[in-house]
Amino acid sequence: MALPIYILNGPNLNFLGVREPETYGANTLQDVQDDCEAKAKSLGAEVDFRQTNHEGTLVDWLQEAHTKASAVVLNAGAYTHTSVAIADAIRAISTPVIELHISNVHAREEFRLHSFLSEACAGVMVGFGTYGYELAVQAAAHLNNERAD
Amino acid sequence: MALPIYILNGPNLNFLGVREPETYGANTLQDVQDDCEAKAKSLGAEVDFRQTNHEGTLVDWLQEAHTKASAVVLNAGAYTHTSVAIADAIRAISTPVIELHISNVHAREEFRLHSFLSEACAGVMVGFGTYGYELAVQAAAHLNNERAD
Amino acid sequence: MALPIYILNGPNLNFLGVREPETYGANTLQDVQDDCEAKAKSLGAEVDFRQTNHEGTLVDWLQEAHTKASAVVLNAGAYTHTSVAIADAIRAISTPVIELHISNVHAREEFRLHSFLSEACAGVMVGFGTYGYELAVQAAAHLNNERAD
Amino acid sequence: MALPIYILNGPNLNFLGVREPETYGANTLQDVQDDCEAKAKSLGAEVDFRQTNHEGTLVDWLQEAHTKASAVVLNAGAYTHTSVAIADAIRAISTPVIELHISNVHAREEFRLHSFLSEACAGVMVGFGTYGYELAVQAAAHLNNERAD
Amino acid sequence: MALPIYILNGPNLNFLGVREPETYGANTLQDVQDDCEAKAKSLGAEVDFRQTNHEGTLVDWLQEAHTKASAVVLNAGAYTHTSVAIADAIRAISTPVIELHISNVHAREEFRLHSFLSEACAGVMVGFGTYGYELAVQAAAHLNNERAD
Amino acid sequence: MALPIYILNGPNLNFLGVREPETYGANTLQDVQDDCEAKAKSLGAEVDFRQTNHEGTLVDWLQEAHTKASAVVLNAGAYTHTSVAIADAIRAISTPVIELHISNVHAREEFRLHSFLSEACAGVMVGFGTYGYELAVQAAAHLNNERAD
Amino acid sequence: MALPIYILNGPNLNFLGVREPETYGANTLQDVQDDCEAKAKSLGAEVDFRQTNHEGTLVDWLQEAHTKASAVVLNAGAYTHTSVAIADAIRAISTPVIELHISNVHAREEFRLHSFLSEACAGVMVGFGTYGYELAVQAAAHLNNERAD
Amino acid sequence: MALPIYILNGPNLNFLGVREPETYGANTLQDVQDDCEAKAKSLGAEVDFRQTNHEGTLVDWLQEAHTKASAVVLNAGAYTHTSVAIADAIRAISTPVIELHISNVHAREEFRLHSFLSEACAGVMVGFGTYGYELAVQAAAHLNNERAD
Amino acid sequence: MALPIYILNGPNLNFLGVREPETYGANTLQDVQDDCEAKAKSLGAEVDFRQTNHEGTLVDWLQEAHTKASAVVLNAGAYTHTSVAIADAIRAISTPVIELHISNVHAREEFRLHSFLSEACAGVMVGFGTYGYELAVQAAAHLNNERAD
Amino acid sequence: MALPIYILNGPNLNFLGVREPETYGANTLQDVQDDCEAKAKSLGAEVDFRQTNHEGTLVDWLQEAHTKASAVVLNAGAYTHTSVAIADAIRAISTPVIELHISNVHAREEFRLHSFLSEACAGVMVGFGTYGYELAVQAAAHLNNERAD
Amino acid sequence: MALPIYILNGPNLNFLGVREPETYGANTLQDVQDDCEAKAKSLGAEVDFRQTNHEGTLVDWLQEAHTKASAVVLNAGAYTHTSVAIADAIRAISTPVIELHISNVHAREEFRLHSFLSEACAGVMVGFGTYGYELAVQAAAHLNNERAD
Amino acid sequence: MALPIYILNGPNLNFLGVREPETYGANTLQDVQDDCEAKAKSLGAEVDFRQTNHEGTLVDWLQEAHTKASAVVLNAGAYTHTSVAIADAIRAISTPVIELHISNVHAREEFRLHSFLSEACAGVMVGFGTYGYELAVQAAAHLNNERAD
Repeated sequence: MALPIYILNGPNLNFLGVREPETYGANTLQDVQDDCEAKAKSLGAEVDFRQTNHEGTLVDWLQEAHTKASAVVLNAGAYTHTSVAIADAIRAISTPVIELHISNVHAREEFRLHSFLSEACAGVMVGFGTYGYELAVQAAAHLNNERAD
Repeated sequence: MALPIYILNGPNLNFLGVREPETYGANTLQDVQDDCEAKAKSLGAEVDFRQTNHEGTLVDWLQEAHTKASAVVLNAGAYTHTSVAIADAIRAISTPVIELHISNVHAREEFRLHSFLSEACAGVMVGFGTYGYELAVQAAAHLNNERAD
Repeated sequence: MALPIYILNGPNLNFLGVREPETYGANTLQDVQDDCEAKAKSLGAEVDFRQTNHEGTLVDWLQEAHTKASAVVLNAGAYTHTSVAIADAIRAISTPVIELHISNVHAREEFRLHSFLSEACAGVMVGFGTYGYELAVQAAAHLNNERAD
Repeated sequence: MALPIYILNGPNLNFLGVREPETYGANTLQDVQDDCEAKAKSLGAEVDFRQTNHEGTLVDWLQEAHTKASAVVLNAGAYTHTSVAIADAIRAISTPVIELHISNVHAREEFRLHSFLSEACAGVMVGFGTYGYELAVQAAAHLNNERAD
Repeated sequence: MALPIYILNGPNLNFLGVREPETYGANTLQDVQDDCEAKAKSLGAEVDFRQTNHEGTLVDWLQEAHTKASAVVLNAGAYTHTSVAIADAIRAISTPVIELHISNVHAREEFRLHSFLSEACAGVMVGFGTYGYELAVQAAAHLNNERAD
Repeated sequence: MALPIYILNGPNLNFLGVREPETYGANTLQDVQDDCEAKAKSLGAEVDFRQTNHEGTLVDWLQEAHTKASAVVLNAGAYTHTSVAIADAIRAISTPVIELHISNVHAREEFRLHSFLSEACAGVMVGFGTYGYELAVQAAAHLNNERAD
Repeated sequence: MALPIYILNGPNLNFLGVREPETYGANTLQDVQDDCEAKAKSLGAEVDFRQTNHEGTLVDWLQEAHTKASAVVLNAGAYTHTSVAIADAIRAISTPVIELHISNVHAREEFRLHSFLSEACAGVMVGFGTYGYELAVQAAAHLNNERAD
Repeated sequence: MALPIYILNGPNLNFLGVREPETYGANTLQDVQDDCEAKAKSLGAEVDFRQTNHEGTLVDWLQEAHTKASAVVLNAGAYTHTSVAIADAIRAISTPVIELHISNVHAREEFRLHSFLSEACAGVMVGFGTYGYELAVQAAAHLNNERAD
Repeated sequence: MALPIYILNGPNLNFLGVREPETYGANTLQDVQDDCEAKAKSLGAEVDFRQTNHEGTLVDWLQEAHTKASAVVLNAGAYTHTSVAIADAIRAISTPVIELHISNVHAREEFRLHSFLSEACAGVMVGFGTYGYELAVQAAAHLNNERAD
Repeated sequence: MALPIYILNGPNLNFLGVREPETYGANTLQDVQDDCEAKAKSLGAEVDFRQTNHEGTLVDWLQEAHTKASAVVLNAGAYTHTSVAIADAIRAISTPVIELHISNVHAREEFRLHSFLSEACAGVMVGFGTYGYELAVQAAAHLNNERAD
Repeated sequence: MALPIYILNGPNLNFLGVREPETYGANTLQDVQDDCEAKAKSLGAEVDFRQTNHEGTLVDWLQEAHTKASAVVLNAGAYTHTSVAIADAIRAISTPVIELHISNVHAREEFRLHSFLSEACAGVMVGFGTYGYELAVQAAAHLNNERAD
Repeated sequence: MALPIYILNGPNLNFLGVREPETYGANTLQDVQDDCEAKAKSLGAEVDFRQTNHEGTLVDWLQEAHTKASAVVLNAGAYTHTSVAIADAIRAISTPVIELHISNVHAREEFRLHSFLSEACAGVMVGFGTYGYELAVQAAAHLNNERAD
């Protein structure tokens, strides 16, 4: 189980802590990365934490995860609601992917109600704030342990 | 924070382990209850675990949780997709509610794609199998610690 | 005209005055009951005032009203928007039913815009706060007087 | 509270008693006006009763009510289902408006199910025949008393 | 059968011959009126030919036709697609109404496909150019002869 | 103008006078044919009158009309609402086609509101009973005279 | 084949013979029960006949049928159109379920056109009046014989 | 009651037993015909059993049944979902028609969920395999007996 | 270029500065008129500034603009979302029309998202507050200069 | 591989070269047949080329292809968009079917966007003009070679 | 107010003047840039003018504008209709954004009617050709002056 | 005709042969490239074969093809269903584009049924496996020959 857990963040998540703090909280993406690394360490795992505004780059990284990662935690931001290409990449790889959203997307705008990704993911975690990243790392580790059995 | 976490299960969940094991896994509801109690104990918390086939009873229990529970983990089963009454009960109480589904409902029938409850809940957890109950208990405890600060 | 007017309340109305007072006002359901009884008395009528969280119980009570009530004032709460069974019960009985909502449901969420019951009821009263109960009792008495002619 | 209650009637209501009596009853609009004036008198109030077939005239009258009326009872007839302009006028004025329909519009044609006005009104009264006008006058007086407190 | 046939024209029909001649032809509304009068004369009938841009005025004229006309030929122009008030006026009167359109509305924009009026009219005539007015006058006379039997 | 006017009737029209006379009148299809032949004769024209229950046969006849008819009056019955093949045949030929319905289809079932044919036809005539056939023959003759100019 | 056939009836069916006899016929539910028992006897089978107004109770009974019944005939009344919970219960058990409706639901209101249950049932029987119960008992016995082979 | 029961089969049913046996079973259409004839004989009735791939031919046969058959059992195959012409033929005749499907169409493709025929039929029978033909013959005989009373 | 620019305002715009200032700003319609006149003067142009609550009057004024105005700036208020008649008037005239809205209608209620007018207008300007009127006057002058070339 | 390739053409394709040449080209159906026969010959294959306006006949021919053809090239014309019966016939046979359209149907009317057939076919070819027939014959031969391996 | 106005152009705008000049005019993007720079200079402002075919790059540039630009004029081309990511970037920054389209998108294809961006922008400008860029620069300068007060 | 044929592949096509071989076959993208080059050679043509996961890069390449390619074969993968930008690029260039899909997209998920690209392309080829690339190269060469005439 030497492969790291990829934590992939999509568009505008680099503005975390800056943008609409009443919705997304005051933590910055660096804070989240620190928490994830600490959590992973406590579970004997490792994370590779990234952010991009480009849909195609998320597809590239997911394909890379096919052989380089044990699991993926994916917060695809706005591409969640529009990208069939990312959903296809999730289907194309055998690495399990956990979809994550910081805020409760179900209580927001109409166009955020539908996710192209959920159907292709192993599990979905919504609305636990940035603490959701820690839960997702834990769930990813659990999935790996199960598969290791 | 002496109040227990309510874990409320809706219709047909008493058939867990019996019904469609390829979708819901081989664990029975009693197994799930045992895991939840163990997990809660390890976090210094307590759970009150129940099941019913009646929509009205779920409303009764949620109202009871208003003063008797610190948090609710709710797997409302099929009522997730049809009950405005349960959604109203969640809004009516100040206790935070976490919606939970064992299987990935997003990868199933059309009519399971919409949840009346998600909008009213604090968070949603989908597709982690019965292990999701443990994650939800942990998330509930985390919410309580945050409110206690 | 010795039969009482049934005033039937559905799910979560026992939380009146507790839940979202900016929407439903500060009166409790007991206050409403007191006002209805006073109003009925002033009109020489009587009321039978009840609340339940169970859809099936509302069906039972409406069937009972077929022979035991002169009219029904029905605030079916959330079941208004989902219950064909209650609508069928209203059609099944010859006692006239008045649909009532405390708040203006037309100014709220999308899923509250449609009522399965309105089509089957004699009349509908929406948005007059808890004072609407008094108007409805008065309308019920008026209906009975007309039929008595 | 010396200002009168405006009672505004929209298109084709001047045919009341002539047109489809099985739906609208045998009372003429003059009968309704007489009942409203009597009812208002008994409550120490006054009414100003009008009818027009023109959408723009209803907008004019509602704007006039902003400073000249204590409340409005509005039966907008067919414009209920098509007029955003009237709905905007209701929002533009601070005088409370009560929407009224003689017959149960919910039990009629599909295109009569939606009202542009309900969302902007204080309350809605449907299906009590021409007796609904008296109930509406009473509700208007009640609203004024409440505001006067 | 001394009562005239009303020929009522709605918004923008005063621009006939000016506006989009490839769709509506080169005849002006005055030409149409002349043809109608000649046709009526040949059938021993009389026409009363009018135009207005106001929805409310069309409602007024239809109500007037209740006692003053033997039949109505109605080209309601754009109000065809938006006016429930005119449809109600047609239902409110006992005089038969024939809906007429100069061009083939079925081969034009989406929003011109639906007519609120057709359901309430005796008959509909579409796409025969201004010659359709003559056919409609003839049909109106035929309807009257039938009723006279 | 030696070519005849085709009058083509679709499925179930051979039951005219038998089926639902309150909707379609008491005239049989033979009566209609007689009226059409008389009317045509008075205009110096000729008709070729046919009926079939087969969609494909209507397509065959329309193609035949391309060279053998001066105009077509088409009552396609139920195929009006489902047949793209007939609509394509109308587009494929240069002979003008007039769509005809005996009853007012706009006041009947939902699925009769849409016609695949109207968009492709020269004109539409609806709701004049079997007298509509005579008006349509007249309109067809008028079209031919215009083209002859 | 010692297990009985469950015949389960949903909301308002206890009003059979009382409510809208032009739709449902004059037979009472007791009459139906008598016919079913006679029919079953003639086939060497047994029936267990019940009625409830509660959705949750229908779920309870269907779960009970998993081990206690050879087949189920289910007239779920209004819950047919709103209950995913009952559909899930049908899926959860291995006992075959036959959906039954007394009247032709396809010829009634729009909201009665969709059944959540049909997809999960073995077969559906609609519109044969109360005689449909006998046909359903016979079909249930046939299903059991087939499985017994 | 000397008239036979017509059993009419639509497109592709001549491939029964050949096509998708996991959906339709291994019986051929000849087997079904044999069973129907045996069943009818046992009830003192007679059947006339036919198959065609042509929509128009089904319309012809239904019209023929108006005077030549006591009842019709109709499996219209794919035309069930597209044919208004067949639905009109069912309405046009006074002979009762029973709609039948071998497989459970409610558990198949989206476009098979809607039937144009159900609304016009006396009853519907779905999902009982080829045994459904026997039940339908029995139901047809029952209908005839009732009418004979 | 001696013809003036018409600036036409629809229903409720006479309440500007009074109604919902957080949406529409504190400027009154008189302020807007003053700004437009100043702006026009600075560009060597002239404006004719009007307001009405009547749909028909807007149609009248647009027709008048055909020969009396060089361009039209149109804020049709609520009629934007319901009036095909105004859209037809815009199409009927050769004078270019600029649609204008003070607030960002795209960020408001669902029913304000669709404009019948935009398709027929030369350009659209939304969300620049009352300053948008000045921009529109400038755009109108630019259009005229271009056409004058 | 002695069986021929069936090339089946639906309604109005016999008007190829006559009808709308700007959409379909100047080639007649006979030209297309000649090209197909030449192409097949060059591949050592044979074609059987037919046209019909009848939906039922296309079903008949497809059933015939089950045992008599190695592959089918099907241009179903307008039935593409309405025929479930043809789609069922394609599913009923084991011979592979290639759907073909001469023009780019995706760039035409709304109702031509959906094909009932595509889902059931092996492949689809759209927009290559009559040259598409040659490509389809080649693809059919390729499919047969693959199956022969 | 030393910060420049960003003018950001999306996919295919580098083909301006090349592609469909009847829709977009003959000006190239370089011409537009020259006009914008001249206009800005005349207002004492500065512009930074860019083009890209990549959605992610538009998100990058909008984020950059958060601290580096006083306002943004955004012509997002086709991404207007599909990108939630760009809309989120607009919401994430405090710099005001003006949406601009050269042609009247409301008079074009269906899928161009909806903009994900409009709701998040300060204002929208549509249909003024490339002159719209100058108006937008002026509006941007006006917004900045207002904020500077 | 010295210009090469561009063969452009979109997201996840680099996983061909790896991902879901039961849907896409066992050939890798390198195999496909080899086949295309061989086929082109045999026709005296040349191909330029590329793959990218980025939507913007596909737009760049299509624009490049405007002057550098004789034709384009485009398998845009998932962007087929979401990209208006690619569709606009196809419209912006004069080089003909052939849309290609390896599997039959019509028999897959709902969201794969709609292509934004088809309307803008010269032709479409679906479901012939990787052999479709060869057919497309042949069709592209044919298009070029036609244009060369």
